Amino acid sequence: MIKVGIIGAGRIGKVHTESIQKYVKCAQVKTIADPFLNDDTIAWAKGLGVENFTKDYKDILNDKEIDAVLICSSTDTHCPISLEAIAAGKHIFCEKPVDPEPANILKVKKALEGKNLKYQVGFNRRFDHNFMAAKEAVKSGKIGDLNVLKVCSRDPGAPPVSYIKVSGGIFLDMTIHDFDMVRFISGAEVEEIYAMGAVLVDPEIATAGDIDTAIITMKLSNGALAVIDNCRRASYGYDQRVEAFGSLGQVQIGNDTVSTAIISNADGVTKEKPLYFFLERYMQAYAREITEFFECIKNDTEVPAGIEDGLQSVLIGRAATKSYKEGKPVKLSEMI
Amino acid sequence: MIKVGIIGAGRIGKVHTESIQKYVKCAQVKTIADPFLNDDTIAWAKGLGVENFTKDYKDILNDKEIDAVLICSSTDTHCPISLEAIAAGKHIFCEKPVDPEPANILKVKKALEGKNLKYQVGFNRRFDHNFMAAKEAVKSGKIGDLNVLKVCSRDPGAPPVSYIKVSGGIFLDMTIHDFDMVRFISGAEVEEIYAMGAVLVDPEIATAGDIDTAIITMKLSNGALAVIDNCRRASYGYDQRVEAFGSLGQVQIGNDTVSTAIISNADGVTKEKPLYFFLERYMQAYAREITEFFECIKNDTEVPAGIEDGLQSVLIGRAATKSYKEGKPVKLSEMI
Amino acid sequence: MIKVGIIGAGRIGKVHTESIQKYVKCAQVKTIADPFLNDDTIAWAKGLGVENFTKDYKDILNDKEIDAVLICSSTDTHCPISLEAIAAGKHIFCEKPVDPEPANILKVKKALEGKNLKYQVGFNRRFDHNFMAAKEAVKSGKIGDLNVLKVCSRDPGAPPVSYIKVSGGIFLDMTIHDFDMVRFISGAEVEEIYAMGAVLVDPEIATAGDIDTAIITMKLSNGALAVIDNCRRASYGYDQRVEAFGSLGQVQIGNDTVSTAIISNADGVTKEKPLYFFLERYMQAYAREITEFFECIKNDTEVPAGIEDGLQSVLIGRAATKSYKEGKPVKLSEMI
Amino acid sequence: MIKVGIIGAGRIGKVHTESIQKYVKCAQVKTIADPFLNDDTIAWAKGLGVENFTKDYKDILNDKEIDAVLICSSTDTHCPISLEAIAAGKHIFCEKPVDPEPANILKVKKALEGKNLKYQVGFNRRFDHNFMAAKEAVKSGKIGDLNVLKVCSRDPGAPPVSYIKVSGGIFLDMTIHDFDMVRFISGAEVEEIYAMGAVLVDPEIATAGDIDTAIITMKLSNGALAVIDNCRRASYGYDQRVEAFGSLGQVQIGNDTVSTAIISNADGVTKEKPLYFFLERYMQAYAREITEFFECIKNDTEVPAGIEDGLQSVLIGRAATKSYKEGKPVKLSEMI
Repeated sequence: MIKVGIIGAGRIGKVHTESIQKYVKCAQVKTIADPFLNDDTIAWAKGLGVENFTKDYKDILNDKEIDAVLICSSTDTHCPISLEAIAAGKHIFCEKPVDPEPANILKVKKALEGKNLKYQVGFNRRFDHNFMAAKEAVKSGKIGDLNVLKVCSRDPGAPPVSYIKVSGGIFLDMTIHDFDMVRFISGAEVEEIYAMGAVLVDPEIATAGDIDTAIITMKLSNGALAVIDNCRRASYGYDQRVEAFGSLGQVQIGNDTVSTAIISNADGVTKEKPLYFFLERYMQAYAREITEFFECIKNDTEVPAGIEDGLQSVLIGRAATKSYKEGKPVKLSEMI
Repeated sequence: MIKVGIIGAGRIGKVHTESIQKYVKCAQVKTIADPFLNDDTIAWAKGLGVENFTKDYKDILNDKEIDAVLICSSTDTHCPISLEAIAAGKHIFCEKPVDPEPANILKVKKALEGKNLKYQVGFNRRFDHNFMAAKEAVKSGKIGDLNVLKVCSRDPGAPPVSYIKVSGGIFLDMTIHDFDMVRFISGAEVEEIYAMGAVLVDPEIATAGDIDTAIITMKLSNGALAVIDNCRRASYGYDQRVEAFGSLGQVQIGNDTVSTAIISNADGVTKEKPLYFFLERYMQAYAREITEFFECIKNDTEVPAGIEDGLQSVLIGRAATKSYKEGKPVKLSEMI
Repeated sequence: MIKVGIIGAGRIGKVHTESIQKYVKCAQVKTIADPFLNDDTIAWAKGLGVENFTKDYKDILNDKEIDAVLICSSTDTHCPISLEAIAAGKHIFCEKPVDPEPANILKVKKALEGKNLKYQVGFNRRFDHNFMAAKEAVKSGKIGDLNVLKVCSRDPGAPPVSYIKVSGGIFLDMTIHDFDMVRFISGAEVEEIYAMGAVLVDPEIATAGDIDTAIITMKLSNGALAVIDNCRRASYGYDQRVEAFGSLGQVQIGNDTVSTAIISNADGVTKEKPLYFFLERYMQAYAREITEFFECIKNDTEVPAGIEDGLQSVLIGRAATKSYKEGKPVKLSEMI
Repeated sequence: MIKVGIIGAGRIGKVHTESIQKYVKCAQVKTIADPFLNDDTIAWAKGLGVENFTKDYKDILNDKEIDAVLICSSTDTHCPISLEAIAAGKHIFCEKPVDPEPANILKVKKALEGKNLKYQVGFNRRFDHNFMAAKEAVKSGKIGDLNVLKVCSRDPGAPPVSYIKVSGGIFLDMTIHDFDMVRFISGAEVEEIYAMGAVLVDPEIATAGDIDTAIITMKLSNGALAVIDNCRRASYGYDQRVEAFGSLGQVQIGNDTVSTAIISNADGVTKEKPLYFFLERYMQAYAREITEFFECIKNDTEVPAGIEDGLQSVLIGRAATKSYKEGKPVKLSEMI
């Protein structure tokens, strides 16, 4: 039984705690650490069988019984805590982004060298049944050689401008998932990128120095082209689709819905909107990613999304930002 | 060049005239006969290159130059004119039903014996691209042996009760097309039938002695089962679908729409309603059936819907009527 | 915390045990009883936190701490154990069918009178997200008055003939779920039924005195018509669809798939087959039905599928059997 | 009755001749001119009622009875013949591109000034039922303000390299239709463009100095972003789709198929491939565009695709070519 410490009991920390307690047979949460720990959280966690609570994550790092930690705290703490946890010999699951600064991620990468520790980054979409089916179709050769990869990714609504101001910009905050999907599904690296953007949802976002709508084109290391289109607001909900076009065919994945119901009436033939947002759409993916993390520890296999994936997605996001700001394509080789 | 006479220039007579003049290379309408012929019709027909007009269909039968006639007049005239036209040595395309009385159809059948004349009945759905695809899937063996054939057939709205009173009842007026589709797609004969019905659209239809909603189940000569569901009114338009289920798979055909447009918004993901009614849905089918009739004359091949098809559909319709009225299944062998 | 005893730890007993331990906050399995209890089952159950095991279900009935039992044993034991459990003052969740004999179900119904005990029958499809959406569309008035309800229900493959011999026939074994869906979605009772059937999958099924393909039409108490089509084998998997057609529109529900992936290539545009069979398709429905059972106990509300539902589905199944055997429609009022 | 001369009786000249003779009530083809005129063409045209034939298009321009000409000859002759036809006072329908050189198109534009002559350019997709539905959804405000317009356009197979060498490059030869669709559907002008391309279909295309796969992003004058993805070969046929995303919703249009048939079997649930290529997909659009041209002459209304549309599409194509060659975004204002 792998003993686990949860560092950060916010929304995503709770999702992972619940997944471990319900679905992961080989792991058990021993302790939850959160500086803002309150009674509600404690009551909720006790209902799931968690027994120890602390406001100081160092209690977890110092606990010799604990084998693995989940870093679900605020982004600025990911790298420092990662380095301490590595020093303490813990396996680590770290939410993304590891850090907006590649240099910091590289420090974590260096610290991991020679250690037999698992370090998984929280790219949950890699565990979504739809994205997995797209990857499988590409990897299996079903569509032949990949020619064009298209990712459409739209949120149901923009976050508050206060959030956007500290988000690192749309490419590091929102598109980072899509960059990871480009790498995951194509099995290739991004070599060159060009980003076009606009403020079409809310002029306040412009005052925050960001954009809300973007189209990003990429050249990949396998010769294929890729394109992502993003928008912070889709009236019909969370829109997450992929189209991978190859020499022998195409695979498309679409959105999930609450049911398959279709209503026909005088207005047309209507099916349901996509599931509203990421917690609905990716709930199963969260459970799968955390299950797989512990399987990797148990079986000593490679994690499905490692520190290098964390690094690459940030490098691409920064290249996209540079391309948008300078109005020209940027090579990834310039970024590091 | 096959010279053609049109007997009856109502809605369907006009559809066929236009098809012949525009699409059929080996035929030409020489004369149109209609007792209610008016100036508008004449002007319209002249625009299509028709030059002769009469109020008396006998002028057509007596014209030695005319090779083929289309009988598009009222149902009660189909059989008498058919018999005269056969006597005059004309090829005949006759709108359905040939006659509500099997005995009358049998007379036409008998008159055709030994004559080298084509006699095609206007079962237009046999020429619809969707129904043809369903038949092809069954005939080719793609779905294996047919097990269950399901036909859904709903009109956008009920005709006036005055029409219903003289229609011969829903099974002979509306379901007759579906009975023909069961025979066409299955390639088998109906052996036994049970009809359940109700008045759910308009109580006036009950006072006319008819029903507006029905489910009809059948045993076919190849062992398969079939079911038709009918309704005189569908709020979303003309609903014409088929599902043929076999040992190796299933083929389903759906409705056609004006475009493939899909609108996603806060209300859902909506595609267009079916094409409104038979003239929209089956316009191409009308052109194909008439083209094929003249191809059969030219090449002396068998017509795709002959007098026997006209007879069988009426027999099945009458068996359904009997089943509904007596509340029990009826064998087709009882009907003739 | 409601203490639970599981009677019968076969496939479905295990499904429910897992659901309770993982998803139901207000209940806990205290004891599992199964005459064939083995070490594997015990090890598996201990992993879920179950601590007591017995070969004799009476140990559960005699345990004063246990509030509710799940009867997941063989069909012939459902009624006797139900009666004993009622006498012991336990709430009961009983798998379907309660019994093939209406008289036995009536005994249970009588025994429940005046007792403040919950008795839920395992009609899991009532908790499926798709069927729920169909019911909701009908109930809410979205499609107006119900005119025609169509249920298509096909298994991926026939069970062994040995099973079929003791199954009570297709209508009580397989269609019983569909009869319940007709009642659930329509909110009405079946008044008259006509069943047509055939052996098209496997001639051995005929030697067992049963059929494998059927079409069943019904008149409902609200005036609507209903039709079910069944087959024991669909080459493409578990086919479970509904179409409810009303005065204002239609709702259709389709099958679930592993992903939304669509592959386009030289062969066509292909989406995935339906989920293979009931454990895949209805896994979430099983969890929901058991959750709701305990919610009903906790809040003292009416169970969503009670003894009367268990009775009606058996009566309809027997009427269908009679109709098929006698070759004529049967009124439900004749059956009791 | 408008008298028409056809200049160039190749594939597209024949399509238009047939459309005029069959569907256009107010026009009639008087003469066909083609330097390579042969007996087959003459026999075919006579069957449609055309009576005059010549190898010299000047015979048509000199015929005072002829009101309108269709220029369907090779691209290099479009501008010279246009100028002569304008001088001769003929209405003109000219196939696209008007000319690869904007300067030449401007000469035609200048020659038209002050003349009451119609000049329509052959952008057939503007008359396709699907693209029309997309435009209508945008124009009507159904999707709110346009944010992102996506056009996917793939041919079933690459033309011979000999053709590609003289085609003017993919952006002027193939994407030019998609550029017109961006302008047509958005109702806005392209202001800036960036093109990324690759040779992924056939290395021979690289030796011809061209590419076969491209992604092109654009900023539009209404603030929206647009993206086109092109490929010269799609294994599943002609892929022509549009997605217009706006503040209130999204409209998507898909491909047409021969029928709505869906086959379910052990391999999946398969619908038909798209119609194979432009003659199949756009046959009705060709008929509509030519009908509308003559309606504009008859009613003296504005043509739906004029010389300015011909000019803009060429300017955008040249900007895309420049962007691809120089590896940077290009403003349209630089191009003229």
